[in-house]
Amino acid sequence: MEHLEGRQSVLAALQARRRKFQVILIAQGTHAETVREVVEAAAAQGIPVKHVARAELDSMAHGATHGGVLAIVSPKARTTPAELEDLLASLAEAPLLLLLEGIDDARNLGFVLRTAEATGAHAVLIKKHLWDFDPVEISRPSSGAYERMPLVQIEDLAPLVALQRRGIRMLGCLAGARQTIFQTDLTGPAILAIGGEKRGLSGAVRAICDRFVTIPTRPGASSLSLSHCAAIVLAEAMRQRGCDS
Amino acid sequence: MEHLEGRQSVLAALQARRRKFQVILIAQGTHAETVREVVEAAAAQGIPVKHVARAELDSMAHGATHGGVLAIVSPKARTTPAELEDLLASLAEAPLLLLLEGIDDARNLGFVLRTAEATGAHAVLIKKHLWDFDPVEISRPSSGAYERMPLVQIEDLAPLVALQRRGIRMLGCLAGARQTIFQTDLTGPAILAIGGEKRGLSGAVRAICDRFVTIPTRPGASSLSLSHCAAIVLAEAMRQRGCDS
Repeated sequence: MEHLEGRQSVLAALQARRRKFQVILIAQGTHAETVREVVEAAAAQGIPVKHVARAELDSMAHGATHGGVLAIVSPKARTTPAELEDLLASLAEAPLLLLLEGIDDARNLGFVLRTAEATGAHAVLIKKHLWDFDPVEISRPSSGAYERMPLVQIEDLAPLVALQRRGIRMLGCLAGARQTIFQTDLTGPAILAIGGEKRGLSGAVRAICDRFVTIPTRPGASSLSLSHCAAIVLAEAMRQRGCDS
Repeated sequence: MEHLEGRQSVLAALQARRRKFQVILIAQGTHAETVREVVEAAAAQGIPVKHVARAELDSMAHGATHGGVLAIVSPKARTTPAELEDLLASLAEAPLLLLLEGIDDARNLGFVLRTAEATGAHAVLIKKHLWDFDPVEISRPSSGAYERMPLVQIEDLAPLVALQRRGIRMLGCLAGARQTIFQTDLTGPAILAIGGEKRGLSGAVRAICDRFVTIPTRPGASSLSLSHCAAIVLAEAMRQRGCDS
């Protein structure tokens, strides 16, 4: 079992209905209005709610920002590559996927999921074991997106190659690539591949990229962080796809 | 005096020459090649370098990621509104400024500075006392940008109104504004105003905005975080300003 901490994470998981809830704990003294939606959704789904002393909840929590709400839940099921295929087949628009390679920070993953959902990406793929991350640390910055966004954990390159065979182009984001994201057509089916801050994209992933693109940045400035790089590329795809209309 | 922790932060400060260095401490056992640039820059500027036991450095450090390098330095001088005027007068291009209101997290400020520098913003203004933040927490995620980016702390709206009188438009970023950033001309002199995650832009700042703009996001998704919102708006300004050419 895992924790979910904070009203927003717990409510998002109740609404997404992708986890089994064992119990929801609420600290005594928490304002009833603050947790009304959580309590009502729990009642509707027959999930027990237990009021406990704040000190007890504090001692159980992994983070400091639970705001008096903690749920004990089953781990969020990963989206399998087969489920991803089904998801893509059901889309009315060109797939937009994000591949993160070598992401090391659970908070950054949470922020990326939040941005990816907001900008209309269909799924996030990570080449990393999810159990390396504390789910509480992913969940909080994701602001609920962790419960809703399909997150696919891949072990090797085979699922990527399979996606490419379906006509999805893999665009590797690399500092110094000649073509900028603003010069690149991002309206077609695409996987945007972004590497971790320490090592960037691996040679193996680079070898299967269809094209490399870059975010043009000011000379002398540091590189962008992974999550901000992802935000800028995804927003440019969103712009090109005519979200404006 | 303040701390700078980590090779990159210390090196950026040595290069920017905006702080006085009291001493640079290097943990015994740190690989000489790793700190070569720091040691050489310190020698060139006559700054003492002291080798100390790693446990001693660990016990002094605020963060866990100093990598064996810690400097004791004067606080970074704020850019005053008068200095900002001089800076703007010297620009060959239309000013692009970022106003953050109600930012609460030092790490987020660090990430915003990094993104603002990379995307070509000329200064960041904050309506917040900088001494509310641990400089180590700003510096690390900024990846050196904290040492280089002009950061202006404003107490009230007067400096903003003065900038507007110079012909700089203030664009308030608001969820739900009718006009998107993609439909808005961002090539002219502009202050992009972004509010903190808890309360958004204050009524007082909204009252002086020339226009409101929004990042169009997927219905049902959570709002973007402050630093990712800033990254997307700044990158769109960069695109429109023809960084591509």
